[in-house]
Amino acid sequence: MPVSFESDRLRVVLVSARNPLNIGAAARAMSNFGFSRLRVVNPYERAFREARSAVGAAAGVLAGAQEYKDVGEAVADCTLVVGTTAVRHRDLQHPIRRLELAARLIRRHSGPGGVALLFGSERFGLSNLDLSHCHWLLRIPTSDQHISMNLGQAVAVCLYELVRNARAAGTAEKQALATSGEVELITATLLRVLGASTYMSPDRAPATEERVRRMVRRLRLSARDAEAWLGILRQILWELQSAKRPAG
Amino acid sequence: MPVSFESDRLRVVLVSARNPLNIGAAARAMSNFGFSRLRVVNPYERAFREARSAVGAAAGVLAGAQEYKDVGEAVADCTLVVGTTAVRHRDLQHPIRRLELAARLIRRHSGPGGVALLFGSERFGLSNLDLSHCHWLLRIPTSDQHISMNLGQAVAVCLYELVRNARAAGTAEKQALATSGEVELITATLLRVLGASTYMSPDRAPATEERVRRMVRRLRLSARDAEAWLGILRQILWELQSAKRPAG
Repeated sequence: MPVSFESDRLRVVLVSARNPLNIGAAARAMSNFGFSRLRVVNPYERAFREARSAVGAAAGVLAGAQEYKDVGEAVADCTLVVGTTAVRHRDLQHPIRRLELAARLIRRHSGPGGVALLFGSERFGLSNLDLSHCHWLLRIPTSDQHISMNLGQAVAVCLYELVRNARAAGTAEKQALATSGEVELITATLLRVLGASTYMSPDRAPATEERVRRMVRRLRLSARDAEAWLGILRQILWELQSAKRPAG
Repeated sequence: MPVSFESDRLRVVLVSARNPLNIGAAARAMSNFGFSRLRVVNPYERAFREARSAVGAAAGVLAGAQEYKDVGEAVADCTLVVGTTAVRHRDLQHPIRRLELAARLIRRHSGPGGVALLFGSERFGLSNLDLSHCHWLLRIPTSDQHISMNLGQAVAVCLYELVRNARAAGTAEKQALATSGEVELITATLLRVLGASTYMSPDRAPATEERVRRMVRRLRLSARDAEAWLGILRQILWELQSAKRPAG
């Protein structure tokens, strides 16, 4: 996974999370995207206990999770503290940046120490007191009609954007295409099939041949599929020719 | 929300989903990112019924969800069918593209009809039969150690990438900075405070003044904060001067 950001620098901080499923989901997203440092501030005690007892992909992250009494303590070793919010303009007390930009700034943050990414409680988000510890806020570009995301999904989307590789958008993982020779072999075999069947009338053969050749090329067959198609066509041809041959 | 892709063209297709929470989470992510057309293939009947009875942000999407017996039926009106997979190379029967590229291809797909994005069951993913309906596959760039994502989180990440706006990464939503005049007023007031206190010795005053001016400018104060700081400094200055004034 091409992570340009040192994932070890990020602390995912869940503030007052109340649902163990959400704590577990956040941890699972962290392990999916290669992050390990989970911090939990003032969780509903039972929720945290239940979440920690979970097994599966998130177990390692949850086992290493650290618990804090307040946000100040949880971010003390960080040189950049970013809060997440669904609200567009909470009185503009902080600059609010869209996730696309926010992730770029987090990746480029060159200070020593860690970067904290804060997520608030499921019902109320981050309080103004929590937010006062933040340098700035990020928002996920949700629809104006439904701005508020599920906690686990919000964590997943933010972490995805952090590991996202812009260059990966430009390069296909290509399958080997069939060569022109292979494609022409298919064309020729298909033409023999059409000739053996009643599809191609002799007087229209040249026009048909060109049309078929173009149609086969437009299929953009992979080398693997070309072989399979050739097998199918040869089998059909054999059947057609057998049918015409006088029974011995 | 700047959606370059017509969100109405996308059909999110959940195949054999068994957990009502996941069906609900998928629907919630859809409403968060402005998508509405949910299709459910062969769901565990009870899960689908429970999910549909949910209230909240996802209720509208769930109420409009359509149920299908098999994948072929669910994608019949689509001209592009993309399957999601965590597996890197399922025998290479399909081209597999990373999400960054996949979303670009989906957004650019210019054929008529819809685009289907298929998600498999929580435990087994899409079957080979399901996959045979797909033109190609996409994978979310997860860590090699923990490739398998939660269904609701996978849907959220894919839809986020579809609405993601690359240009938003380049533009900050800026706060108005204080003008040089406002900053200098703070500097002057702070210098008077320092003069009134014992911090600044008269013989070192010029060097201190320049140092303080630079320090204040490095704060890059917003217009709003500059005003607040000025108020604080004026109050301190007033207190210091009162303390020195002979009691009358």
